[in-house]
Amino acid sequence: MIYAGIDLGGTTIKAALISENGEILCKKSIPTGAERPHREIVEDMANLITGLVEEQGYTFDDVHSVGVGVPGAIDPVNGVCYFSANFADFRDVHITDIMKETIPVPIYIENDANVAGLGEAMFGAGNGAKNCITITLGTGLGGGIIIDGKIFSGAFFGGGEMGHQVIVVDGLLCNCGRKGCWEVYSSATGLIRMGKKRAIDHPNSKLNLMEDGKINQLNAKDIFDAANEGDPYAQDAIEEYARYLAIGLGNTINVFQPEYIIIGGGPSAQRDKLLNPVMKYLRSEVYGGQTRTQVVIAKLGNDAGVVGAAMLGKQ
Amino acid sequence: MIYAGIDLGGTTIKAALISENGEILCKKSIPTGAERPHREIVEDMANLITGLVEEQGYTFDDVHSVGVGVPGAIDPVNGVCYFSANFADFRDVHITDIMKETIPVPIYIENDANVAGLGEAMFGAGNGAKNCITITLGTGLGGGIIIDGKIFSGAFFGGGEMGHQVIVVDGLLCNCGRKGCWEVYSSATGLIRMGKKRAIDHPNSKLNLMEDGKINQLNAKDIFDAANEGDPYAQDAIEEYARYLAIGLGNTINVFQPEYIIIGGGPSAQRDKLLNPVMKYLRSEVYGGQTRTQVVIAKLGNDAGVVGAAMLGKQ
Repeated sequence: MIYAGIDLGGTTIKAALISENGEILCKKSIPTGAERPHREIVEDMANLITGLVEEQGYTFDDVHSVGVGVPGAIDPVNGVCYFSANFADFRDVHITDIMKETIPVPIYIENDANVAGLGEAMFGAGNGAKNCITITLGTGLGGGIIIDGKIFSGAFFGGGEMGHQVIVVDGLLCNCGRKGCWEVYSSATGLIRMGKKRAIDHPNSKLNLMEDGKINQLNAKDIFDAANEGDPYAQDAIEEYARYLAIGLGNTINVFQPEYIIIGGGPSAQRDKLLNPVMKYLRSEVYGGQTRTQVVIAKLGNDAGVVGAAMLGKQ
Repeated sequence: MIYAGIDLGGTTIKAALISENGEILCKKSIPTGAERPHREIVEDMANLITGLVEEQGYTFDDVHSVGVGVPGAIDPVNGVCYFSANFADFRDVHITDIMKETIPVPIYIENDANVAGLGEAMFGAGNGAKNCITITLGTGLGGGIIIDGKIFSGAFFGGGEMGHQVIVVDGLLCNCGRKGCWEVYSSATGLIRMGKKRAIDHPNSKLNLMEDGKINQLNAKDIFDAANEGDPYAQDAIEEYARYLAIGLGNTINVFQPEYIIIGGGPSAQRDKLLNPVMKYLRSEVYGGQTRTQVVIAKLGNDAGVVGAAMLGKQ
């Protein structure tokens, strides 16, 4: 049997057929057209899968199930997306009902961060671990929690908001309205803010030479590049960032004690240049001073979504 | 069938026989003698249960299983307590092996905070909820996490340390060595510290009249009593305490979104006098501004341990 996965994004719909062992047999993308009525988008997802199955010489008799990762508030039991801010017309969308009209196999949906976490746990850096947390460092800080081999999202499907835990009471304002959330300090956005501050405070910092001096376009890689070139201000920004990241990881380990914490997203591309300073701080942040939890860099990159989505049917 | 539960404490060993529905059929306590060799303590637990079974006219044919709640680091799969600070000789104690010598039914052990959480979830304030977190406000802040009806303690049995999450980076030193843990602010100890500070800063506070002016003996109830009598400094201490407690509860809801958060321990005896200020702050601390998680006061009190321990065999 093969498994079909869809990663619905604000820009692109990605689809793939996946083997039992997590191999991507084939994949295809189309533009989302996020401004369109939701029915058109959902029908496109169904057609994309149907096309992929036919093109590859399969029939739906070969397909175990179709899984879909959707950004937003999802009810996986009823196959409904309550709301997604990434599309113009996505409120109470009965995704599975619409897809069932043309797809004759079971259809599962889940939040996109959760499916990416499932993909990484099963076939990525998690090596098939049953207890695994994936942290994605991007505009925000997303979490995908796997407990006993299954996605954990709380009793009402909206849990797992790892980034929206206060680690600095009365700290910087978060987009969610709270102050001092982990996300404010440890998202890629947080690192960029720490870099920009140093660029402004220290005109002689290499950070000001990045991107033709346009510090508003500074990104995470620029800061690591400047640090590699020996810029002490960039190095200091990374130290600050690593410390906050380690504090949140320490909290996560003390509560969840997973086999793996997998770090993905922009800054994770720096691998040991991110992990080394994080691990230095993490040692003093875990209960009892040591942990068997392994902190590792994500493996599947942009494919985590389609792989994890496809595996929803295997859970 | 009946279920036997033991709550091993530093001072007292409590044992009870429990019905299928969580009723306590009978209970009995003996002093622990924490300074003794571990074998004597464990044999006493076995004898206490055997005595209770015989006294009540049962045989072990009527007993489904024996469960034991133990303070410390527990491996429930192998029935071992790696270490407990509450006893003089408790390192690598094979509790189930020793008890098996005289007890002919299955024996299960677990961390005491976890079993208390299980008891509250199944037959206490959790009303049988499958996703439930119990927070105990005492010397420290303990957590018992129930997911899918089962105790969750991470991949290596040492998770669930809810109190050892940093909520104030660079905050007050915690016993665990980190700075700014939730426990420092939201344990009963934290409330007492907040009360004492006001007593010292404000000589005219009623807090100085408590306990014959011995502010070193101030307890959580004294602070609530002074607040009830209109003392503004005591009221202020409770507001501060409630706010920190709400921040940690907000973090817990954003990640776990349980059906219930159950609050136990000394300050919880104040019921609405604690819950009302906490709920006021909590509303601004949850993602999206609202939650279906119910925050309630524990019901079973000191019996949560024996009830939960007995139910280990029913999991």
